[in-house]
Amino acid sequence: MKSVTVFAPATVANVACGFDIFGFAVHEPGDVAKVTLCDKPVVEITSITGDGGKLPKSAAKNTAGFAAIRYLETIQSDRGVAIELHKKMPLSSGLGSSAASAIAVLVAINTLFGNRLTKHELLGIALQAEKLACGSAHADNVAPALFGGFVLIHPSDSGLTFKENELPDIVDLPVPTALHCTIIHPQVEVRTADARNVLSPNVPLKHAVRQWANTAGLVAGLFRSDFALISRSLNDYVIEPQRARLIPHFYKMKQAAIESGALGCSISGSGPSVFALSQSAFEAQKIGQAMQIVLSDHGIANQVYISKINTVGPQIIAREG
Amino acid sequence: MKSVTVFAPATVANVACGFDIFGFAVHEPGDVAKVTLCDKPVVEITSITGDGGKLPKSAAKNTAGFAAIRYLETIQSDRGVAIELHKKMPLSSGLGSSAASAIAVLVAINTLFGNRLTKHELLGIALQAEKLACGSAHADNVAPALFGGFVLIHPSDSGLTFKENELPDIVDLPVPTALHCTIIHPQVEVRTADARNVLSPNVPLKHAVRQWANTAGLVAGLFRSDFALISRSLNDYVIEPQRARLIPHFYKMKQAAIESGALGCSISGSGPSVFALSQSAFEAQKIGQAMQIVLSDHGIANQVYISKINTVGPQIIAREG
Repeated sequence: MKSVTVFAPATVANVACGFDIFGFAVHEPGDVAKVTLCDKPVVEITSITGDGGKLPKSAAKNTAGFAAIRYLETIQSDRGVAIELHKKMPLSSGLGSSAASAIAVLVAINTLFGNRLTKHELLGIALQAEKLACGSAHADNVAPALFGGFVLIHPSDSGLTFKENELPDIVDLPVPTALHCTIIHPQVEVRTADARNVLSPNVPLKHAVRQWANTAGLVAGLFRSDFALISRSLNDYVIEPQRARLIPHFYKMKQAAIESGALGCSISGSGPSVFALSQSAFEAQKIGQAMQIVLSDHGIANQVYISKINTVGPQIIAREG
Repeated sequence: MKSVTVFAPATVANVACGFDIFGFAVHEPGDVAKVTLCDKPVVEITSITGDGGKLPKSAAKNTAGFAAIRYLETIQSDRGVAIELHKKMPLSSGLGSSAASAIAVLVAINTLFGNRLTKHELLGIALQAEKLACGSAHADNVAPALFGGFVLIHPSDSGLTFKENELPDIVDLPVPTALHCTIIHPQVEVRTADARNVLSPNVPLKHAVRQWANTAGLVAGLFRSDFALISRSLNDYVIEPQRARLIPHFYKMKQAAIESGALGCSISGSGPSVFALSQSAFEAQKIGQAMQIVLSDHGIANQVYISKINTVGPQIIAREG
């Protein structure tokens, strides 16, 4: 039968100053989904690798399976699909793992059906799947996973979570070609819900003002390829101070990254992964080593990923039939 | 004796979403200062017009006079200046009246002394003068009055107020050539201190997030000349709802502006002036008329000013001697 295999990238949400509004995609890690067209009008997850048996195989309960079900409903198809999901990144890592799986499946299935839906329509479905996975339909992982690059999620009338049939306003931002990302994933678990629960519902006005100066400064820095301005803007006065304690040795890793030349370093999404941006592959490597030493010295298993910002987004890596 | 006469522009600070961080200059209104070199090492204010007798003539107590004193101290001059100040805009209007006077004098005096100080050094002096006038050294009026255009004030380590000898980080933003500004000044008084006192020291996180999405979106909109994005970003979820009640019929004026084609409409600085941005001189005129009808219907005297964004900044309009 006809099948399409798609890679969809991991994503770094928040990006220091931009809680709930910024996200970018990387080249590594990411998930791979092979989707095969079937005559039976059902969605079946035939195998999942790399999840340590943690993800549900029931399609309706699995983010990627749910996205496939919604896709088929939307196009009113009388056919179904079989999904092989290869998790190639840690779960609950703050790297948009559920978003990557859902986007890989959606792009594969849309290819099988002759691109019947637009990318924005896929985004709408992915947001509903994200709600299943994380409890709220935030776009800061699914949008960069789908569109690639560095994106700004602009608020809808109801804010930064999106209702069914409501499409978020995605602004793609330019990415300086020299920009590199280092990610370190400490093998400890931080649940998104816990990471949300530690946040105060209020922000001191003086911190909020610095934060909105930084989101404005970061956008200007990206447009101008002004690395000094990008660096001055990669400071989070609001979220990082509240979440840092959930991540082992966060401030030591951050210090190591900055001392190794990072433009900035903060928590990826709700953690526990930590990211740093820099201006070259050399610095990105050096930063990765420095952060890794901090964790390894404390006996914490970890993975390091280094890549440029992924401006391509999902990629079809195989077609059969 | 040698003299230089300079026009410095009024400025719109905050610009809806960017409390304390955004400001832009207009072509009209503005202040004019004629500064004449004297042999006596003193600063003398020989006349002030247009202030209704409200401004102090003692140089040390007058923003513009104080700026001149500081300038002469900085360059260690043994000469002095005489200042004629022509206030061509309402005082306490939310249009950066004290900043315009200080900048006009500083640019004139710097010209007389062969541009001994850089623009950034002038900014440092203007900030100290602003502190004298408003009680805090904010840069969101003085920076656009001095540099022209649309600027982002990036926070220093100590935030958005600046200590002596600390120079703020000014990011100039691109301005779409079609962008027009309509300003209406209702003849009522709002003291900056009162306007600050009504503000809650805390912001709900969900409003702060929308606000920093909007400052990011506004910058992206300016870089892309994307008027739809500029319009979607010109919303203030934090400050405007708290200050609107200080301004008579604010929401009626805003509605009139939006219905007349404004991209956005909010309070200029701490008010009572209200500004609206639009895409053409025709719309800017229409918006001005619509807002004026609201105030005139309620018997409130007012002035309307219409101009493009002033990307030039202060201008030398006469030299003698």
